[in-house]
Amino acid sequence: MTLPKITRATLERNLPIFEWSRTYDRDTLTSDMVAAVIVTIMLIPQSLAYALLAGLPPEMGLYASILPLVAYAIFGTSRALAVGPVAVVSLMTAAAIGNLGLSDPAQYALAAITLAFISGVILMVMGIFRLGFLANFLSHPVIAGFITASGVLIASSQLKHIMGVEAHGHTLITIWGDLFAHQHMVNPITLAIGVTTTAFLFWVRKGLKPLLLATGMKPRLADILAKAGPVGAVVVTTLAVWIFDLENKGVAIVGDVPMGLPPLTAPSFSADLWGQLFISALLISIIGFVESVSVAQTLAAKKRQRIVPDQELVGLGASNIAAAVTGGYPVTGGFARSVVNFDAGAETPAAGAFTAVGILLAALLLTPLLFFLPKATLAATIIVAVLSLVDFSILTKAWGYSRVDFAAVAATIFLTLGFGVEMGVSAGVILSIGLFLYKTSRPHVAEVGLVPGTQHFRNINRHKVETRPEMVTLRIDESLYFANARFLEDYVYNRISCDEPIRHVVLMCSAVNEIDMSALESLEAINQRLRDLGISLHMSEVKGPVMDRLKRSHFLDELTGQVYLSQYDAWRVLTGPQALDSTEPGS
Amino acid sequence: MTLPKITRATLERNLPIFEWSRTYDRDTLTSDMVAAVIVTIMLIPQSLAYALLAGLPPEMGLYASILPLVAYAIFGTSRALAVGPVAVVSLMTAAAIGNLGLSDPAQYALAAITLAFISGVILMVMGIFRLGFLANFLSHPVIAGFITASGVLIASSQLKHIMGVEAHGHTLITIWGDLFAHQHMVNPITLAIGVTTTAFLFWVRKGLKPLLLATGMKPRLADILAKAGPVGAVVVTTLAVWIFDLENKGVAIVGDVPMGLPPLTAPSFSADLWGQLFISALLISIIGFVESVSVAQTLAAKKRQRIVPDQELVGLGASNIAAAVTGGYPVTGGFARSVVNFDAGAETPAAGAFTAVGILLAALLLTPLLFFLPKATLAATIIVAVLSLVDFSILTKAWGYSRVDFAAVAATIFLTLGFGVEMGVSAGVILSIGLFLYKTSRPHVAEVGLVPGTQHFRNINRHKVETRPEMVTLRIDESLYFANARFLEDYVYNRISCDEPIRHVVLMCSAVNEIDMSALESLEAINQRLRDLGISLHMSEVKGPVMDRLKRSHFLDELTGQVYLSQYDAWRVLTGPQALDSTEPGS
Repeated sequence: MTLPKITRATLERNLPIFEWSRTYDRDTLTSDMVAAVIVTIMLIPQSLAYALLAGLPPEMGLYASILPLVAYAIFGTSRALAVGPVAVVSLMTAAAIGNLGLSDPAQYALAAITLAFISGVILMVMGIFRLGFLANFLSHPVIAGFITASGVLIASSQLKHIMGVEAHGHTLITIWGDLFAHQHMVNPITLAIGVTTTAFLFWVRKGLKPLLLATGMKPRLADILAKAGPVGAVVVTTLAVWIFDLENKGVAIVGDVPMGLPPLTAPSFSADLWGQLFISALLISIIGFVESVSVAQTLAAKKRQRIVPDQELVGLGASNIAAAVTGGYPVTGGFARSVVNFDAGAETPAAGAFTAVGILLAALLLTPLLFFLPKATLAATIIVAVLSLVDFSILTKAWGYSRVDFAAVAATIFLTLGFGVEMGVSAGVILSIGLFLYKTSRPHVAEVGLVPGTQHFRNINRHKVETRPEMVTLRIDESLYFANARFLEDYVYNRISCDEPIRHVVLMCSAVNEIDMSALESLEAINQRLRDLGISLHMSEVKGPVMDRLKRSHFLDELTGQVYLSQYDAWRVLTGPQALDSTEPGS
Repeated sequence: MTLPKITRATLERNLPIFEWSRTYDRDTLTSDMVAAVIVTIMLIPQSLAYALLAGLPPEMGLYASILPLVAYAIFGTSRALAVGPVAVVSLMTAAAIGNLGLSDPAQYALAAITLAFISGVILMVMGIFRLGFLANFLSHPVIAGFITASGVLIASSQLKHIMGVEAHGHTLITIWGDLFAHQHMVNPITLAIGVTTTAFLFWVRKGLKPLLLATGMKPRLADILAKAGPVGAVVVTTLAVWIFDLENKGVAIVGDVPMGLPPLTAPSFSADLWGQLFISALLISIIGFVESVSVAQTLAAKKRQRIVPDQELVGLGASNIAAAVTGGYPVTGGFARSVVNFDAGAETPAAGAFTAVGILLAALLLTPLLFFLPKATLAATIIVAVLSLVDFSILTKAWGYSRVDFAAVAATIFLTLGFGVEMGVSAGVILSIGLFLYKTSRPHVAEVGLVPGTQHFRNINRHKVETRPEMVTLRIDESLYFANARFLEDYVYNRISCDEPIRHVVLMCSAVNEIDMSALESLEAINQRLRDLGISLHMSEVKGPVMDRLKRSHFLDELTGQVYLSQYDAWRVLTGPQALDSTEPGS
């Protein structure tokens, strides 16, 4: 039996594994294996910690780091992206499920699995219908503001583990309010472990590598040791708890983590639950996709490789569905671990599959060793990881460049901190789009004149230009569409009511990329109104696609003036000696 | 006591009555009185009929035609607009309150009063904050489609009265389904009255005036008689029911209409009810505003008067609040009656106040005479009135001009008919904005060359132009912002990967009206990527406001090439003999 329709090219496009596996050899294998070992060491404490952040049992973090990596290796296009639980998506998961008010941990876990499944379906569907462009509506400043605010929220949410107190909440005020309310219950030993570990990890990040290099160690090894810092902290603090019996002195520990293969799980198909989770899943999908693609593109550019965003959607969708069927929760490509993977020499997505094997071994063998691991240690690894995401300089940068961008960033940060991640990112997107629409609805219109000695026309208020009293040229600096059609009418009517001898109005359309039906009706109205006043309406520099469109209507037949190829042509004809004899060159 | 801050100009701006009342004289009074009489005659059956359409007792239609007209006369800017209950807003009122599932008529009436109040507050607030531009986001094709579909829905909803059966529903399918289900219960006498009246009214509209003119009657009087057609139908059918005791033969009648002044009423301030009605009130406000302003502007243009849209919001807001406190329901400026008012010679808003007096007299004196008025007659007046709004030609017009406009119109019509007015108009607005954003997110980029013998540059695919292999000029036909920043990057990278000898890329920015922060980051990325490939990036024809913005960033310092005032300057410098010696004129 043959399947003649499926060519190799089709397969390679839809399953990138067929492309890179063809050239896979022993060297590539070695590179991928080394990268996988380093990422595995980094990922074990991270996946436990992010599960804690999402409000889930730690093993779910491990489960989310096994099959999803294999799924991405098959469907994804990035050669260095490392998929798994990440900080921002874990926070969004906690916020989404927190809204449901579930008290039963099994229900909570089921909701997380369902969230991963819905998110996977959304990503898959977006990929199949090539809707990746939707992610473009998250502007860079909004993303930057959102990531920064999320980092602050995440770090704040971990302080309870450092202090050893109970605290809840998904906004800055509720988190800090809870912390202050419980400050008398701080556990000093937990606090000592937490603060020491945090300080140690910061030092590892900044100071260890230079120190090791100074001892003459090879850069590669120094790098690996520095990356293994969190594992060292895990080992040392776990031993400390075990040896000094700190558990009975009030230090919260991870406790029993089941040993074995990830379980086979199924999401809930309750319509109610889907309804409650859908918006959250959509936001998680888009944020996860944007974060992942920008990491993947940065890394691909360094090796002149290409990312196919719509195929990335399929890859991430498959990963999330894989997470949902093996007891995981929403995953995406992580920034820090992808960079580590890339730096460690990962050549193909197989590195991700090998990492999955590493995590699987950990789930099969190491979980009993995690019993005495203090939660404060995990919290410290999260805090150190996310504080590197926090960068408020986006605020000053945006303020310096544009008030509109600043408004979007400031609102995103403020609303994320004050009302939670979902409100923050939704408001950021809506505000960005709203401000863009507002700007385009009140376009810049410049009156232009001829720059002497050239055929070029510029704003009469900014340049020294020639003009004629009987001819007004308005350059419209925006596409004409329903939101600004009426604005143009008002502008033209106001302009012509000022001067008496005007006989020609020229609309210079070099910046008009579109004239929709509403705008066409406005142009017809302007043409008619000017005709009643004895003024001809002309157009110049109308672009090809716009002209094609106008030719399909009756507007050009009714136009009292002409359409000129260039503004200079209009100037020559309308200001030449013969122009003074005839008011209506179009008639 | 003096209020020195309030000048006459301030008063005139905020209370237009102070402006027109200054020049009010006996002639104006006569014109206004005549117009008021004609509009009153037209408005009595209409206001009863529209109340029926809204699912309210007929007297509420009368009440909505008294104080609101006085309020508009004080605050509104149009000299001819006739405010009151209108067809589309009545249908939207029925849909909004129908959603609440109220069975008690008193509760239903209270909800209508509350809807008018919320709508009044929304309009007032929009007026005070000068948010009239928001209405621009309803594109002309969407409005046209919405009005047409509403007309079909309204006419369909009245068939039950013509047939004398019970039927409910707010969509085409539910209305017609109900009618078919009840067809065996048709009352033949009601049907006879309904069909005859409908036919009579159509004839009055088309055939009566020419006939009267043919008899030598003065045009003005013929016009008034033709407009009085509905009153004639009301009188004749009411008499018929009374004389032949048709009520007892199953003809539904209006019944007891209370006689007297409009009652003083107060809206509900239940937070629940406000929450349920808010979106509906917002849609009613915007649709009402758009309908009203477009009528007002059309009529004002004929007399070279001006409408102030933001002040119109205040006027309509005051009218709706007036409706809410005197037992009315949402009102706005009506198309047909405003045209009648204008044609009848109304000179000032005082005509509206006089009409209010006319309706008040009707409410005080005539209501007992309405007892035997058949509902079928009112339904016939509605059907004849709204079918003039139905114009499916917008579909073919939009199809011919632009597929995008067509999509918006078709979706608006389909969703209004299939899922009701609120869904229809919301979808129309969202789709219009979405399609606009989609278009701008995939901008047209043209590669341009010099039109020989000029300094003008046009698309190489559309015009015969000069080009140089070492220089690529891309004219970007869209503002650069977050939604298309990545598109530009991809476009440039694809273009330069095709040809080998490229040394200069010029971005011609004559159509770029904005470069936001996301786009700036993309430009920085393009500049850096091209530098790595030994290609200089230049820009030309950057507009003043965009250049101001760029100067605030570091981009211009890092740019490998130059910014040229005109594309011709760029061409001269980069293709001149000296250009061949230096790859980086910007360094």
